[in-house]
Amino acid sequence: MAISKEADTLRALYQSWTDQMVANPNLTILNLRSMFDEWGRPALEPESVTYKSDCVGGVEAIWAYPQSADTSHVILYTHGGGFAVGSADSHRKMAGHLAKALGVTACNLHYRRAPEHPFPAQIEDAVAAYKALLAKGYDPKKIATAGDSAGGNLAVASVLKFRDLGLPLPGAVIAYSPWLDMALRGKTLQTNAGTDALVSQAILEGMRGMFLGGKTDPLDKLANPLENDFTGFPPLYITCGSAETLQSDSESLHAKAKAQGVKTVLSVVPGMQHVFPALSGRALEADQELARIAAWYRAL
Amino acid sequence: MAISKEADTLRALYQSWTDQMVANPNLTILNLRSMFDEWGRPALEPESVTYKSDCVGGVEAIWAYPQSADTSHVILYTHGGGFAVGSADSHRKMAGHLAKALGVTACNLHYRRAPEHPFPAQIEDAVAAYKALLAKGYDPKKIATAGDSAGGNLAVASVLKFRDLGLPLPGAVIAYSPWLDMALRGKTLQTNAGTDALVSQAILEGMRGMFLGGKTDPLDKLANPLENDFTGFPPLYITCGSAETLQSDSESLHAKAKAQGVKTVLSVVPGMQHVFPALSGRALEADQELARIAAWYRAL
Repeated sequence: MAISKEADTLRALYQSWTDQMVANPNLTILNLRSMFDEWGRPALEPESVTYKSDCVGGVEAIWAYPQSADTSHVILYTHGGGFAVGSADSHRKMAGHLAKALGVTACNLHYRRAPEHPFPAQIEDAVAAYKALLAKGYDPKKIATAGDSAGGNLAVASVLKFRDLGLPLPGAVIAYSPWLDMALRGKTLQTNAGTDALVSQAILEGMRGMFLGGKTDPLDKLANPLENDFTGFPPLYITCGSAETLQSDSESLHAKAKAQGVKTVLSVVPGMQHVFPALSGRALEADQELARIAAWYRAL
Repeated sequence: MAISKEADTLRALYQSWTDQMVANPNLTILNLRSMFDEWGRPALEPESVTYKSDCVGGVEAIWAYPQSADTSHVILYTHGGGFAVGSADSHRKMAGHLAKALGVTACNLHYRRAPEHPFPAQIEDAVAAYKALLAKGYDPKKIATAGDSAGGNLAVASVLKFRDLGLPLPGAVIAYSPWLDMALRGKTLQTNAGTDALVSQAILEGMRGMFLGGKTDPLDKLANPLENDFTGFPPLYITCGSAETLQSDSESLHAKAKAQGVKTVLSVVPGMQHVFPALSGRALEADQELARIAAWYRAL
């Protein structure tokens, strides 16, 4: 699969992480958090975007304000990293690029992470931040949840939780390479094992162990969004790469949501690695995807 | 020494790094680079600042543009990290805060690092970027070099190199906790060993080994700025903390420059750790220092 030289930098970064984890199996969670914070490296700085450190509903967050954004619209962004690593810092540029492409602002959450804070702490933080946005006067229809990998799970699961709580639902949900199935049943876990430079069954099992804390069922409806009925769910945009072991998760979510009447789009980009919008500003493949998401968002 | 709760977060971060290095003496240079990139964590996002990824004189860089900056003025910023770790990314907020305080822009260099690129690659990169700024039409008097720790060395050494090359000199030099003496002769290396949570003789010896590559004399004039005559050097602002093992380096530079007629200021802030402006936006001690530097800069 021919991918751009720029896109290949993400594969190389992931391969470097994999090599480091293989070379030193005793890396601590602190070492891993340091390493995964390099997720911010591939994206270029989105130009004409300012930032603000804040606390939203008790959750630390980084706001992104593209200079020409419609400030009545906001993306509630939840970063990836298996619920245990990654941060609002590592995903600052990624959220900034998405906000800029959509012409809106972003509130990028530094939610509590596993294993210190297992499920459902992450969803509780997303709920607290969403309620705080509503309390600030945001129109729910002008809020989109978005996230990548484990944060893509949270972008979906939090909306299911909002529904359970009787809160008004956001206007859109965007998931980059979501990790949804805690039971790890996706067939691409095997069929794409040779092309995905980062996400393996072993890594997912390790992350799942920290997230569920040995207590929560992998089929729990909130931990595993695929176990839900999506009737009435907001318009949904899902993107992933064809090199990913988690491709099946995106496909399963799309198929299920579509069957249940959700306005859903799935974009599988040839040759791309996990969370390829990490290449925003650097690689054409990521910028073209951002343009597609923006066109979809504007047409809602 | 009473320091603010916010300032103590930097000591805690350094102690965490020290603990990780003690717990795992086999951390590779890649692991250490990941860890030190958390240097960006303590500073809050400086508000109303935009960024641009760029290449300046062949050197990767991140520009910071405070919204009300005088764009004819620029800080050429060189990050710290023993010439081997740290990055333009880890110091993005720090450079952004300094630029905002001074009302100018900043060009924050991602220079080549040791051990892959030993001395004088770092200075060559600073020279290339400075020449590129001059070629863009910047008035040298409106350029300031600035940096922290090893990058504070570079902010001084690069100006000495500009002088050797017959280039016009910049209008100001700012050094946060500079590490200058590659011969490690400062008395605070011992007297502050109990208060500095990060910088030890052992760490400096390790960094020095990578930087000098076993080839360059620790008293080489370009590697060790203290070995120079400072006559005609631009106005110089030096700040450091009284908890630092490198306090002597700041004091020696100030004393030598002052004796040789340089307009120099030394600000030693009680109880502060190495590179305490890493707390910009978070701790009063850092913000007060930024205000002092800004007042000095405006009065030049």
